[in-house]
Amino acid sequence: MKERDVIAAEARGKAERDLEELCSFLAFPTVSALPEHKEDLLRAADWLKRWLASAGADECAFLKAGEIPLVYAEWKGPDEAPSLLVYGHYDVQPVDPLEEWKTPPFEGVVRGDNLYARGASDMKGQVYAFVKAAQTLCLRGRVPLTVKLILDGEEESLSPHLREALEAEKERLRCQWVLNCDSGALGPRQPAVTCALRGIAYYEIELTGGKTDLHSGSFGGAVVNPANLLCRLVAGMHDEEGRVVLPGFYDRVRPLSPETQEELSRIPMEESAFRRIAGSAPLGGEAGYTTLERLGVRPSLDVNGLKAGYTKAGVKTVLPNRAMAKLSFRLVPDQDPSEIEGQLREYLERRVPEGISWTLRELMRGPWALADKESLPARTAFNALREAFGVSPLFRRQGFSVPAVGHIKELYGVDAIMMGFMLPDDGIHGPNERQHLPTLYKGTEAYLRFLTGLADAWKHGESA
Amino acid sequence: MKERDVIAAEARGKAERDLEELCSFLAFPTVSALPEHKEDLLRAADWLKRWLASAGADECAFLKAGEIPLVYAEWKGPDEAPSLLVYGHYDVQPVDPLEEWKTPPFEGVVRGDNLYARGASDMKGQVYAFVKAAQTLCLRGRVPLTVKLILDGEEESLSPHLREALEAEKERLRCQWVLNCDSGALGPRQPAVTCALRGIAYYEIELTGGKTDLHSGSFGGAVVNPANLLCRLVAGMHDEEGRVVLPGFYDRVRPLSPETQEELSRIPMEESAFRRIAGSAPLGGEAGYTTLERLGVRPSLDVNGLKAGYTKAGVKTVLPNRAMAKLSFRLVPDQDPSEIEGQLREYLERRVPEGISWTLRELMRGPWALADKESLPARTAFNALREAFGVSPLFRRQGFSVPAVGHIKELYGVDAIMMGFMLPDDGIHGPNERQHLPTLYKGTEAYLRFLTGLADAWKHGESA
Repeated sequence: MKERDVIAAEARGKAERDLEELCSFLAFPTVSALPEHKEDLLRAADWLKRWLASAGADECAFLKAGEIPLVYAEWKGPDEAPSLLVYGHYDVQPVDPLEEWKTPPFEGVVRGDNLYARGASDMKGQVYAFVKAAQTLCLRGRVPLTVKLILDGEEESLSPHLREALEAEKERLRCQWVLNCDSGALGPRQPAVTCALRGIAYYEIELTGGKTDLHSGSFGGAVVNPANLLCRLVAGMHDEEGRVVLPGFYDRVRPLSPETQEELSRIPMEESAFRRIAGSAPLGGEAGYTTLERLGVRPSLDVNGLKAGYTKAGVKTVLPNRAMAKLSFRLVPDQDPSEIEGQLREYLERRVPEGISWTLRELMRGPWALADKESLPARTAFNALREAFGVSPLFRRQGFSVPAVGHIKELYGVDAIMMGFMLPDDGIHGPNERQHLPTLYKGTEAYLRFLTGLADAWKHGESA
Repeated sequence: MKERDVIAAEARGKAERDLEELCSFLAFPTVSALPEHKEDLLRAADWLKRWLASAGADECAFLKAGEIPLVYAEWKGPDEAPSLLVYGHYDVQPVDPLEEWKTPPFEGVVRGDNLYARGASDMKGQVYAFVKAAQTLCLRGRVPLTVKLILDGEEESLSPHLREALEAEKERLRCQWVLNCDSGALGPRQPAVTCALRGIAYYEIELTGGKTDLHSGSFGGAVVNPANLLCRLVAGMHDEEGRVVLPGFYDRVRPLSPETQEELSRIPMEESAFRRIAGSAPLGGEAGYTTLERLGVRPSLDVNGLKAGYTKAGVKTVLPNRAMAKLSFRLVPDQDPSEIEGQLREYLERRVPEGISWTLRELMRGPWALADKESLPARTAFNALREAFGVSPLFRRQGFSVPAVGHIKELYGVDAIMMGFMLPDDGIHGPNERQHLPTLYKGTEAYLRFLTGLADAWKHGESA
């Protein structure tokens, strides 16, 4: 057995033995969207600092980033060694609907091969897997290159302070390469390197009619009902073919090239399997595209929340005076998230009748990303995954957004490689989120092989 | 001063002096839509029984009607005297949004000429006004005809057990005439007799896609989003002219006759005043009709509630797996509420795509009503109001629904006269509901004159 295989096995075993540490991490209800969890985020940040120090980090610090710190840990490599910046986040999505969870969301519970908890997959589990790899190298002597880990506490709220912190800490965070662990595999036997992400633009629209709710008998049919209108406005944003009809929405969308179409067709995706992952949701979307094309290269518009009037049990004969929708767009090259608000505003200006007031608030925004598959980190990631999983990974384009990737590209000029071990059916953001543990342990091994692979390439004089 | 004018003034004064009794009544949070208020309804029923006895009722009882009793009080008139059945309700609408109330909803607070509280206008105030009239006659000796008062505890939930109770108590409740107090005036100086009500059919539609919520990045644009779909379905129920497009919806609607059109045009209604009453809501509705026509003779369809996905502060990048709408129709002669569900079902069957499951639940249903303006009670009400207010009342058609009216007509064959003293700007069903007190006191006088007027007509041999 080669030494690197021995170390790889060691990392896997360590990840398995130290699982209690992950459970401690999961116990912090780090929901960044809800102000009442601020203290939990601060407590988690303290815990992380101590935990990262115990995993051999030479330096642990909080980087200023709004009220919730960015946790920083550095494992110093040999002098002159290049730096790898690693990104992860320690905040999680809200847990509602709470009643659909089988076990408490902030208690890591192993059932079968899975660990259930909010954040188990997205992405405290991935953070854990990476830290176990770094710790294993530490225990062997030294991490063979400088690793600079930043853990974001506001990713699920689209990291409103991350860019500012990255800008302020440019010197400290200087790096040759970037690894983003907020990513997933195609299945337990099919790892992947993500080379593209969609961007996002997320809005809240509120319509207001009169000053108060009205009796639906005394006024129904004679006043404009903001809830009826909201449905009409939202419905009118798509045409019958599932295309978004906002003015200019597709102007910057790159046409699907035959090459990309071929690359996407190589990814194994059976519709039946995808539907299972989607909890049996029916497939649908823009006419003329496959599911992977819809997710990888086409933009979309979805309602994330609707609220109006009376929604408890029974009846209330009320005409609501207000109606609210949360809407988000997923964006692709070369769409500019900053242009979407203008398109939405133009649409509303044209369509909202006089006497109804409306507000449009951008709640988050993040750019799309597209990385070079021929770069050193991309090739190293490819090899690390092949060795850890015994199968060649595929390059994929993912539908979601990771704002850190866009900011780092803009500020540091470095494209991120995305490698993580969430599985498509982990149910991230929903109830009963879980992490497949055998995949997570192989993930630790892959991270370790990635670190040693980059160090080897550096030693052999390759660095780009 | 004639004796009847002396008694009328006495009744008005009594209503004013005893206002604390109304405040005690208002203090019970009798929200029938919410199961947690069941005990409050039962306590209120007990209180009513004692209060009605103290107001001189010869018999007080609970009539069986589901879990919430129908409170019954009878003031016995002379032998052979005809009976007037009087309907009211003691339950109220829910109070949310609670934060918009300036004073606690279950505390009667007088500010200026108004008494503020949930139910002050709809309709504990009206019940109070009527009881004070009956009590005044009692204190004078005897009520000159038999008055049978029933107070419903589930009107705001569309009286699910009322019909059964009315059927079971047919002997006890036998009557020549029916007065429904759940009604209003056009203004403090313009009383009205209501001769028509719209019917109602109220539904909850729920769409379900997959088993759980999904991540909007990983799945957005590739699965059918029930919240997007709900908006499309609701929006599609109206055409561009504001007409309802459910199959057969207008088939039974009576065309607007020139006579009815003329009658409606006599009702004073300035758009600016109506908009003020509607809290500045913009006017709108079916093309080709005036506001009073839209409310009085045309059916309507409104969204009463919408709920899907994440609606709290901030962002959650979620595709909801469920979306819910509460919808209600206001119906006019000769529409049949029992046919609407079929029309809705047919619409959904045609439009909901495969893979999305849906449920349609009827939450309440009530027939429209139309009474003869030439009947004895209609003429007597007209005279009573003219004397109490010093101005001739108008006959009006109201947009709301009172199920009791339909049930009594069907079971007892008697049309109800509707006379009450809510004002259009009382804000019933919304926050800061209020009752205009000078109007309420005149209302007591009008009820008293109505009772003595009917008794006089009977004595003079007129009874229909």
